[in-house]
Amino acid sequence: MAKASEGMNYAPRGKPNPVVKKGEFVFAAMALDHGHIYGMCNGLTEAGAVLKWVFDPDPKKVKAFLEKFPQAKKARSENEIFDDREVKLIAGAAITSERCALGLRAMAAGKDYFTDKAPLTSLRQLKDAKAAVKKTKRKYMCYYSERLHVESAVFAGDLIAQGAIGKVVQVLGLGPHRVGDPRSRPPWFFKKEKYGGILCDIGSHQIELFLFYAGCRDAKVVRSQVANYNHAAFPEFEDFGDAVLVGDNGAAHYFRVDWFTPAGLQNWGDGRSFILGTEGFIEQRKYLNLGIKGSGPDHLFLANKKGEAYYELSGKVGYPYFGRLILDCINRTENAMTQEHCFKAAELAVRTQMKAVKIK
Amino acid sequence: MAKASEGMNYAPRGKPNPVVKKGEFVFAAMALDHGHIYGMCNGLTEAGAVLKWVFDPDPKKVKAFLEKFPQAKKARSENEIFDDREVKLIAGAAITSERCALGLRAMAAGKDYFTDKAPLTSLRQLKDAKAAVKKTKRKYMCYYSERLHVESAVFAGDLIAQGAIGKVVQVLGLGPHRVGDPRSRPPWFFKKEKYGGILCDIGSHQIELFLFYAGCRDAKVVRSQVANYNHAAFPEFEDFGDAVLVGDNGAAHYFRVDWFTPAGLQNWGDGRSFILGTEGFIEQRKYLNLGIKGSGPDHLFLANKKGEAYYELSGKVGYPYFGRLILDCINRTENAMTQEHCFKAAELAVRTQMKAVKIK
Repeated sequence: MAKASEGMNYAPRGKPNPVVKKGEFVFAAMALDHGHIYGMCNGLTEAGAVLKWVFDPDPKKVKAFLEKFPQAKKARSENEIFDDREVKLIAGAAITSERCALGLRAMAAGKDYFTDKAPLTSLRQLKDAKAAVKKTKRKYMCYYSERLHVESAVFAGDLIAQGAIGKVVQVLGLGPHRVGDPRSRPPWFFKKEKYGGILCDIGSHQIELFLFYAGCRDAKVVRSQVANYNHAAFPEFEDFGDAVLVGDNGAAHYFRVDWFTPAGLQNWGDGRSFILGTEGFIEQRKYLNLGIKGSGPDHLFLANKKGEAYYELSGKVGYPYFGRLILDCINRTENAMTQEHCFKAAELAVRTQMKAVKIK
Repeated sequence: MAKASEGMNYAPRGKPNPVVKKGEFVFAAMALDHGHIYGMCNGLTEAGAVLKWVFDPDPKKVKAFLEKFPQAKKARSENEIFDDREVKLIAGAAITSERCALGLRAMAAGKDYFTDKAPLTSLRQLKDAKAAVKKTKRKYMCYYSERLHVESAVFAGDLIAQGAIGKVVQVLGLGPHRVGDPRSRPPWFFKKEKYGGILCDIGSHQIELFLFYAGCRDAKVVRSQVANYNHAAFPEFEDFGDAVLVGDNGAAHYFRVDWFTPAGLQNWGDGRSFILGTEGFIEQRKYLNLGIKGSGPDHLFLANKKGEAYYELSGKVGYPYFGRLILDCINRTENAMTQEHCFKAAELAVRTQMKAVKIK
């Protein structure tokens, strides 16, 4: 099993903050291939959703899941869940290339869909997903956890909205991850067709962050590249990727993702986000404050004309996305995230990957 | 006058550490257009060089200079200095586009040349400089201060050489600067033909850092872009630039430079350098530790399999470049920096600028 010191098992817990009465919103977990399913279910249940079912063909995955979420019932099949009219939302963390197919089945069964990122791995899948949303009027939402489930990232959005740094001119993201013991990883982790490529996979977070912070509806990929610098045993693995995008409003975006977090780091990755504005800038040290022992997550630094400020945000902001998502599903609104935004981030992640030049 | 809170007047002082006997190595300062001349003269005099002369056509600049360096004599002309056979080296901080011409005159007079960065602004100038070096056998060296005159940057080079982070796969640099009151800047600061463009000017530091840390002899510019996001009154000014380069050994480079340091920041720019290796990574916070009041410069963070380490390096490392440069001039060696490396960084800075797409 992969360890908690790897990002795939990073499942933040927040304060319970229910937006609905008990039983008012029921969901199920399905396809437990990626550990993010735990964070997704934490977020939804803390916001008041009831986790009624779990299904995965692998009984070991289901057993481990039930230890964390004993309230869920083990379903015998996907259809047992799809047939339950009480279930409004399917939360899934399938193998990346199979996330769209699961979503299509869920939407066809009348459920909203909430998938781990990246939500899909090809433009063909995107086309199918868009068509299904149009036809079924269901939602195809995504767990872009590096913004939605990170308190400093939520707070950064609030600061920008308040004008703390003026107009955003660039978002720069670093998304290093720890690969850990390769034997702890499922085989699909190293198959490019399955995981979708590093830029599509862990890069999708970054692109979503950019669109959100810079207020872009679209962007152009102007350079992207990938490499396998140090994992020759896994030829389809990409241990490095980076990209430059330019938003439709002229804002710039750079991100780097990699699998080089060393064993001695206190957490799975020193994720950063630098947001440069015309009147100041923000830095987030999302999962640790480098060089400070036991620093915990969610350090945010703000500089503008008034001076510098340092916010330790762990446990202080919460994760409003999940409650908003539940209410969006109930009220058919788009306050948590628009479908357009969710798909645009997915599309750009796929395009960034498709355009990537292999530099090593 | 520009204030000390702007980068152009950042003139670090180190511990005196003479490599020569008094009077053994004599130099002169000439062309005081950029405040970097102070840092250049500090570095050389601390390493034992004797500053004999100063010349600039503007008596106000000379007067201000003599207050800091009273040991220098005011020359009546360039030629008075060029004719003095005791002078071995000319240190100059001319307007960027005129740096090469000064170097050609200095080398023709038999002097080595040490110029502020960027050392030149066009491929034509580079060709002339290379030809003059070949013909005169003199040196055309450059004050790439963001590595040579920053203790954390020197220490990072030592750590990499010791194998602390394995093989370098990417160098990522942030070089934000404070523009301050535009009226405090000379007119040439806003004329692109003069300052050379943001990528050539303050970007040249970054490219030099990359070539050095990643051990590249050459690199390819694969994307570069510039913008004027918020300085409409100065249409030729570029307040933002960034670029992606790929080294001849496959290492990657990204850098961003900008003029958006807000008034409230404790120093002129939150310069960072992130060096990613196969076995760990280094972050430098070169001029301040953001959010920590009165933090001082030269914070270096190292993470590898052994853990995380935080080094406060101010006053502890020194600036070995200057002493090596003096000895190189005396012994005709290349221990401080090879001519090839100096010109390659200059060439790539020019090419990065030439290739830049204007995104706003």
